[in-house]
Amino acid sequence: MSIPPRIGFIGLGIMGRAMAMNLVKAGFQVSVYNRTRRRTMEFADIGCEVAATPRALAKMADTVITMVSDPAAMEDVIEGPEGVASAFAGGNTLMNMSTLSPDYTAALAKKCFLAGVNFLDCPVSGSRAAAESGQLVILAGGEKAALDRLSPVLKALGRAVIYAGPPPAGTALKLCMNLIVAQLTTGLAEAAALAQAQGIAPELIFETLSANPALDCGYFSAKKDKILRKDFPPDFPLRHMLKDARFMLAAAAKKKLALPVTAAVASLLEKSYNSGYGEKDLSVVLSNLTEPLELKR
Amino acid sequence: MSIPPRIGFIGLGIMGRAMAMNLVKAGFQVSVYNRTRRRTMEFADIGCEVAATPRALAKMADTVITMVSDPAAMEDVIEGPEGVASAFAGGNTLMNMSTLSPDYTAALAKKCFLAGVNFLDCPVSGSRAAAESGQLVILAGGEKAALDRLSPVLKALGRAVIYAGPPPAGTALKLCMNLIVAQLTTGLAEAAALAQAQGIAPELIFETLSANPALDCGYFSAKKDKILRKDFPPDFPLRHMLKDARFMLAAAAKKKLALPVTAAVASLLEKSYNSGYGEKDLSVVLSNLTEPLELKR
Repeated sequence: MSIPPRIGFIGLGIMGRAMAMNLVKAGFQVSVYNRTRRRTMEFADIGCEVAATPRALAKMADTVITMVSDPAAMEDVIEGPEGVASAFAGGNTLMNMSTLSPDYTAALAKKCFLAGVNFLDCPVSGSRAAAESGQLVILAGGEKAALDRLSPVLKALGRAVIYAGPPPAGTALKLCMNLIVAQLTTGLAEAAALAQAQGIAPELIFETLSANPALDCGYFSAKKDKILRKDFPPDFPLRHMLKDARFMLAAAAKKKLALPVTAAVASLLEKSYNSGYGEKDLSVVLSNLTEPLELKR
Repeated sequence: MSIPPRIGFIGLGIMGRAMAMNLVKAGFQVSVYNRTRRRTMEFADIGCEVAATPRALAKMADTVITMVSDPAAMEDVIEGPEGVASAFAGGNTLMNMSTLSPDYTAALAKKCFLAGVNFLDCPVSGSRAAAESGQLVILAGGEKAALDRLSPVLKALGRAVIYAGPPPAGTALKLCMNLIVAQLTTGLAEAAALAQAQGIAPELIFETLSANPALDCGYFSAKKDKILRKDFPPDFPLRHMLKDARFMLAAAAKKKLALPVTAAVASLLEKSYNSGYGEKDLSVVLSNLTEPLELKR
């Protein structure tokens, strides 16, 4: 586009912080809003405007990007009394990059359409490292013309854009990808627990994965230290994957589709969440497998 | 070793056939035995001796390699009335490369030890393509000296040898690796089913996997055509993975370890087996997820 977008960015968690920072680095005019104001300070320090409310942010921007934790948070920042919707004008663009439910996304897309707001359904595949290095894969839904106008923004955030179709196709595809990521994680955690139970070193699993080109994938390497050290600083907080697993099961149930393995994954994530591990990396499920063995408590 | 081993190879299924052929190509003297004699014909054609019984094979060889489907088949070829044990002498080597249970492997290792036979516990990571190209990863258990003597043989079969420890460590590690492979497969199948249920093309999943370096792994590419075409020629027959999943759960239960996701995977594999899909590639589990939707029957 000839006139660069004035971006309002909402949600400065692990992912959003890195993404907003990449937009600033790429030279975009970025204003920010975050519920916990402390997280906006580093943006104020580099000259970004910090809005006191989503409504105030909407007045500073023509394009609002959201990266929040769930539909409730999204509803609050968009449709709440101080929400974006109360100040947003026709012709503006709302690009959601959070993982919401397909149902909520479809409803939001409809409201935007009626208000003349361009809605883009653009969740991302990739976690902390990819967000930080601008190497996310963007699963894009919405009007192609609106996406094309924002292509410099997408380029600053990701390495590839996969066009999924009209909303909620981006979100639907995102749930499929996270379903795979969840089973990569439980597979690794259960394998490590089984190795330990059998008296062999879990390191051998990673050695074998690396030696086999068919199984050598970056996701496993990224979880290696967490699994081996049993220390789970969050790249992808467990509570987010629990939320997503529930969305997967709900979307499947709506079509009378049973996902028996994902159901077991969701139960394990829930058990781990109830153990107080919601803010840990989702690979922390290992702790719920091995703890009884180790008599840690 | 200065004197090359005279190899007797038992079990010419998808994996064994490719492995025995690679040993012939590498110049080893290879005799073969297979329960279904038809599969030995191509070996006879290229000058290999074909034994009528495992016992006859053992007389032609100092090193017997087994690649059979389960402990029952192994017991038959080793300890049956016409088994290898009835003709094997002290100093000979038995290298099992099948995936057996850790318990059976430990018992067999003990019997070999008492008979003065070197027992090597060497299952492999990798399926049809890796077996054919000699790129397997060998998960090796047993005495290092005995393994070293056979290193030219291992080199002809695989790209790497991971030393796991005394038997049944190779088998124990193999179960951990297949646990991961099973969840990679169910993850892919459930994601494809969820995509279809949500009205998005399963192709998009593969496009996203390829675009994301953290998720781009050869295993997914190898299953792509099967999943998209819903046609499942076997690289890894489902019945073998069902057997392995039962071994995983048994090994875990012995140590009071629960593997809730693997338990769900085993149930799905069993359902698929009961649908008559035992000889199909394990990715055929997709059919058990989507069939009710498509009203195929």
